[in-house]
Amino acid sequence: MAATFDRLIRFEADDGKTYYGDLGKEAVPSREIQGKTVGVLEGDVESGFKKTGGEAKVEKLLCPLPKTNIVMCVGLNYKQHAEESNLPIPTYPTIFTKPPDALAGPFTAITIHPSCQSQLDYEGELTIVISKDCKNVPASSFADYVLGYTAGNDVSARNYQLPASVSGGQFGYAKSFDGFAPIGPCIASTGVVPDPQKLRYWTKVNGVKRQETGTDDMIWTVGQIIEHLSRGTTLRAGTCIMTGTPSGVGLFMEPKGFVKDGDEVEIHVEGIGSLINTVKFE
Amino acid sequence: MAATFDRLIRFEADDGKTYYGDLGKEAVPSREIQGKTVGVLEGDVESGFKKTGGEAKVEKLLCPLPKTNIVMCVGLNYKQHAEESNLPIPTYPTIFTKPPDALAGPFTAITIHPSCQSQLDYEGELTIVISKDCKNVPASSFADYVLGYTAGNDVSARNYQLPASVSGGQFGYAKSFDGFAPIGPCIASTGVVPDPQKLRYWTKVNGVKRQETGTDDMIWTVGQIIEHLSRGTTLRAGTCIMTGTPSGVGLFMEPKGFVKDGDEVEIHVEGIGSLINTVKFE
Repeated sequence: MAATFDRLIRFEADDGKTYYGDLGKEAVPSREIQGKTVGVLEGDVESGFKKTGGEAKVEKLLCPLPKTNIVMCVGLNYKQHAEESNLPIPTYPTIFTKPPDALAGPFTAITIHPSCQSQLDYEGELTIVISKDCKNVPASSFADYVLGYTAGNDVSARNYQLPASVSGGQFGYAKSFDGFAPIGPCIASTGVVPDPQKLRYWTKVNGVKRQETGTDDMIWTVGQIIEHLSRGTTLRAGTCIMTGTPSGVGLFMEPKGFVKDGDEVEIHVEGIGSLINTVKFE
Repeated sequence: MAATFDRLIRFEADDGKTYYGDLGKEAVPSREIQGKTVGVLEGDVESGFKKTGGEAKVEKLLCPLPKTNIVMCVGLNYKQHAEESNLPIPTYPTIFTKPPDALAGPFTAITIHPSCQSQLDYEGELTIVISKDCKNVPASSFADYVLGYTAGNDVSARNYQLPASVSGGQFGYAKSFDGFAPIGPCIASTGVVPDPQKLRYWTKVNGVKRQETGTDDMIWTVGQIIEHLSRGTTLRAGTCIMTGTPSGVGLFMEPKGFVKDGDEVEIHVEGIGSLINTVKFE
C-alpha cells in the first residue's frame, strides 16, 4: 500500500490543537516549517493516515510521533566509526535500546540532568519508523513495514558509557535519559526515500560540521537491521530504529568536542531535513 | 499509602472474564493457585487497586501485569555470579533492557524461535514492579515507588550474547525475544516484603536445583538500583526491574546446563511463590 503522505509532520496549529500534516513532495528547509500552511492528515501510525482535504498553519512543530513503544539502536554501523572506535565488527549488529520517554521532537531544548553534563555527546543517525506490527521480517521485505525515515540524535552521556569498568560495557544506560532520542523534523515516506542506502547526511554543532557520511557506508543495511531486530521479536508500529552513527563524534575529537550548555546540534539528512535541538543544562 | 493487597494476581475466572485478585496474607503454593477462590480487586497499576468485596475462582492464572512500559535488567548483581562470570564489578550497575513484548506470565509455555534454541538459559531474579511514575528517586525513598516484588526469569539465548565478538558485548538482544521475561505468580506488596534484601530464592530445572541465594548477596540493593535507573529518567508505573541473577546459570555448568524443549523452569522466592514455565521449541 502506498503511503498517504510524502513528509509527515505533527504540529500545533494556531487554534491550539495538534494535527498531523504533510509537507508535500518537495523538502522544506527545517527552519521554514514553522509558519507554513500544510495539508492536514487524520489517523495515526497504528490505523494509518488519510488526507482530510483541510489545511492548517504550523505554529509549533512537534515530534512526528506522539509516543513510541521503544527506540532500538544499532552501534558501530559505519565502517569509519568502527575504525575510530578501534572496535572489531561483530557477527551480528550491536543492539541497545532507549525507553519510550527518551523520545523528543525538533526545535526543543533537551534538558540535561546535572550528572550527564560532563561528557555529553551527539550521534547523528538515519532513523527508521516502523509502520505496522511485524515479526520475522526477511531483509528483502523490509520496505513493507517501514512508515518512513527521519533524522535522529542518539544523545549520549559518555561518562556513563565508557570505559567498560563504569558501565559493565553496556551502552544503553548512558543513552536512555529523558529526551535523549530526538527525531524529526518529518518522517519521509518510502515513496520519497525509495533506497535508504543512498542518502547523504551530516551533523553540525553550532553550525560547524562534525560528521558527514553516506548511508552506503553502513555495515548493516536497513533491511538487515529489521530482519535482525524482528527475529522472534514483535516490532510494534511506531517503533524507532536508530541505525548507527558515522565517524566524527565529540568523544573521538582531539581535543574532545563534547556538547556544552546552550549548544545547537543539527542533524541533516538530504531530502528529509534537519533535526535541530539545543541543550539546556539543568 | 498502604497497598490494598497482599499478593496481587491476575486471572481468568470461570465466567471467562479477567480479574485482579488478592491471594491474601499467607503464601499459596503456586500449583494450588488455579482452582482457588480469591477476593477480587478493581483498578489497575496506574490508578491503584480497591477491593470489590466480591470473590471469584481462579481458572487460569495470568501474568500479574497485562502490559509493561519496559523491563529493565541488572547484570552481574550477585558477588558469586560476578565471580563465576570472571567479570570485574563496574562503578555503576550494569543495565540492559527487554521490550514490552518480552513480558509473559506463569504456567505458560514460552515459545522459542529456532535460532534461539542452541544455548537457551535461565536466570532466576527477584523482580521489582514500579507503582507510579517517578524520576530522581533517592535510594532511601525507594519503597514509596514499589508496587511489590515477584519472581522473574531473565531468559537468555546465549548464542546471541557471548562472546563479545558476536553481540558487540551488548547483553539485551539475546534476552529480548517475545516471552523472554516471564514474571509471577503474584506481586507481593511492600507490606508482605518489607525488606527485599532479606529474601531467599532458588531456581530449579525439571525439579533439580540449579541456583540458590539470598538477596543479601546483591552488590546493588533495590534502593540503589531504583536511584540509578530513575536518574534523569522517568520510570513509569508498571515498569519491571529484574535485579540480577546469582551463580548457577546453565552457561557456567560443566557440562553446560542449557534448557531443552519441554523443560520446566521454576523460580521460587520465599514468601512470594514459584514462577513456573515450560519451554516449547518452535
